[in-house]
Amino acid sequence: MWEVDEDILESITIGAGILGTGGGGNPYIGRLRARQVLRQHGPVTVLDPEELSSDAQIVCVGGIGAPTVGIEKVRDTQSYSAFRAIEKYTGITATALISNEIGGSNSVEELIPAAMAGLPVVDGDGMGRAFPEYHMKTFFVYGVPYVPMALCDEKGNTVIIPEAVSPEWVERIARAVTIQMGCVAVYAVAPMSAEQVVRTAIPRTLSLARDLGAAVREARQHQEDPVDAILATCPGIVLMQGKIVDLDRATTAGFARGSMTIDGLGHYHGQRMDIEFQNENLIARQGDAIVCTVPDLICLVDSDQGEPITTELLRYGFRVTVLGFPAPALWTTPEGLAVVGPRAFGYDTDYTPLNL
Amino acid sequence: MWEVDEDILESITIGAGILGTGGGGNPYIGRLRARQVLRQHGPVTVLDPEELSSDAQIVCVGGIGAPTVGIEKVRDTQSYSAFRAIEKYTGITATALISNEIGGSNSVEELIPAAMAGLPVVDGDGMGRAFPEYHMKTFFVYGVPYVPMALCDEKGNTVIIPEAVSPEWVERIARAVTIQMGCVAVYAVAPMSAEQVVRTAIPRTLSLARDLGAAVREARQHQEDPVDAILATCPGIVLMQGKIVDLDRATTAGFARGSMTIDGLGHYHGQRMDIEFQNENLIARQGDAIVCTVPDLICLVDSDQGEPITTELLRYGFRVTVLGFPAPALWTTPEGLAVVGPRAFGYDTDYTPLNL
Repeated sequence: MWEVDEDILESITIGAGILGTGGGGNPYIGRLRARQVLRQHGPVTVLDPEELSSDAQIVCVGGIGAPTVGIEKVRDTQSYSAFRAIEKYTGITATALISNEIGGSNSVEELIPAAMAGLPVVDGDGMGRAFPEYHMKTFFVYGVPYVPMALCDEKGNTVIIPEAVSPEWVERIARAVTIQMGCVAVYAVAPMSAEQVVRTAIPRTLSLARDLGAAVREARQHQEDPVDAILATCPGIVLMQGKIVDLDRATTAGFARGSMTIDGLGHYHGQRMDIEFQNENLIARQGDAIVCTVPDLICLVDSDQGEPITTELLRYGFRVTVLGFPAPALWTTPEGLAVVGPRAFGYDTDYTPLNL
Repeated sequence: MWEVDEDILESITIGAGILGTGGGGNPYIGRLRARQVLRQHGPVTVLDPEELSSDAQIVCVGGIGAPTVGIEKVRDTQSYSAFRAIEKYTGITATALISNEIGGSNSVEELIPAAMAGLPVVDGDGMGRAFPEYHMKTFFVYGVPYVPMALCDEKGNTVIIPEAVSPEWVERIARAVTIQMGCVAVYAVAPMSAEQVVRTAIPRTLSLARDLGAAVREARQHQEDPVDAILATCPGIVLMQGKIVDLDRATTAGFARGSMTIDGLGHYHGQRMDIEFQNENLIARQGDAIVCTVPDLICLVDSDQGEPITTELLRYGFRVTVLGFPAPALWTTPEGLAVVGPRAFGYDTDYTPLNL
């Protein structure tokens, strides 16, 4: 058990910005929003999954939409409305909250209703990174019900999906509603049991994000290499260091989609890497060779400061380090890969695990 | 109090095909669907609004989508699912059903859940014709709550909108969901009280449709002019008789939109009429002169048989009679015209009542 205060919040959003693989919503805006609520309501308690009581009822909340829109149309406390809407619909009183994904602003979205309702959050999430679509959660892959879910916007509109033929259908309907809501909305899913969370969540990702962020901040303070600090905290490899020389990005069908090209610098001079993204970075190639694909993590940080660079902030000329981290084990099973492997995103290739 | 059996069903769908002003869903398919349920469950009782008991709870059901799709993707008994979903969400047990619009298949959509649940229907509806959008109901114009509403498709997906900032927002969200559901879906709205129905519904439109259809069938049997029979039953005028010489129709944004041109024949030789539609016929012009606009009714029937011609069935070469009927009085108030007057459909003209 530990607490999220303003200082730890900053570390979490840096770490979750890295783990978000480019997506999950802008971490800086997420931090500002969560900070405002923490200032008003005080710190939030974090429970390890193993600390949940057997009769716990855990509601997952998350943002949905295009991160490119999320930096212009800032959310308010709609995740609290969505949380209360799902409590009301199910008639169940929640005892804790959990993040949908440890990525960007979504890593701290659950802190907002938790602080407002005076509830703890769980140290874990449903992805262990960020993914662009609703159904891409370990919860659902391993049998947790994907309905009812509630969707809220900042205007006062609420939509509940009580029945759907598959989690993909929830994604399809919720995405269409989100686009009408202005391309950014927040949702909450029916409560999970402690058993379900322990069995299906990616555990301890909030503390991992905290530790990653703390390591980056520490390195900055001592003018050490933040990339070394990241890799010492979370095992992974450097895939490329260089400069963004091309960027193609569009906000379409409710997502930020596109690709970038990075020309190597220093040790990587003469090399070139192409990365494609749908909110999150999906595949990294050097020429025809695939260097890293979903569900493994492809993460961009600013080479100097270790600051995560999310897809909505990508710009020509940025000096970046591309990091690769292996996917959580729950994703590399056949069931997991069917939902978030390269083929699930339309790539005609099998998943080859990152070579550490 | 009267009953809808198979024979009366046929009359209703002819009459509602006329009153539907081109929309409301294909009446023939609506008839087949309702007939199947009537055969299984027996006739349905129709109550005059004044016959409703003071504690009655009346659920409005209707179809939503593009009629052009509705003739290819036939609905099943989803209106029963939507009806039960709204009962479950509100916790209220309904005592009767009412049609959203006396147009095409929607005029008999409420018979399906009514027969299946063994409940009566109300002789009336929320439009007194058909209109393309959810919020265009006298119920909502005169203060009946427009939420919660439930939306169902044939696959097993259900969406509930418990809160929305306006009825137009329900339309916007429900339309986006309907497009995902395949451009055809069915909805049910939270129960109304007897007082609300008496005050805001267009009364006795189901019996009007029945009488119109019976008059057309009678005329056909005696080889009399069906158009004369229609006008003897429901006061209106002939706006044009002629041949469809041009048609432009597209299924876009969840609607069947387009326009047609009719060249006069016989007494109307040398005249030409243009009609624009969005599921329903909206405006009829001769040259620059507006002949008839919403909310007044512009209705096409086959000149020989009096068979209504809905927008999804329009074809080059059809010999048609264009009829005009005055809108119900609840629509010609400032509040009514704000929602369904010509300006509500983007026409830069005020409403001028049809000159009988």
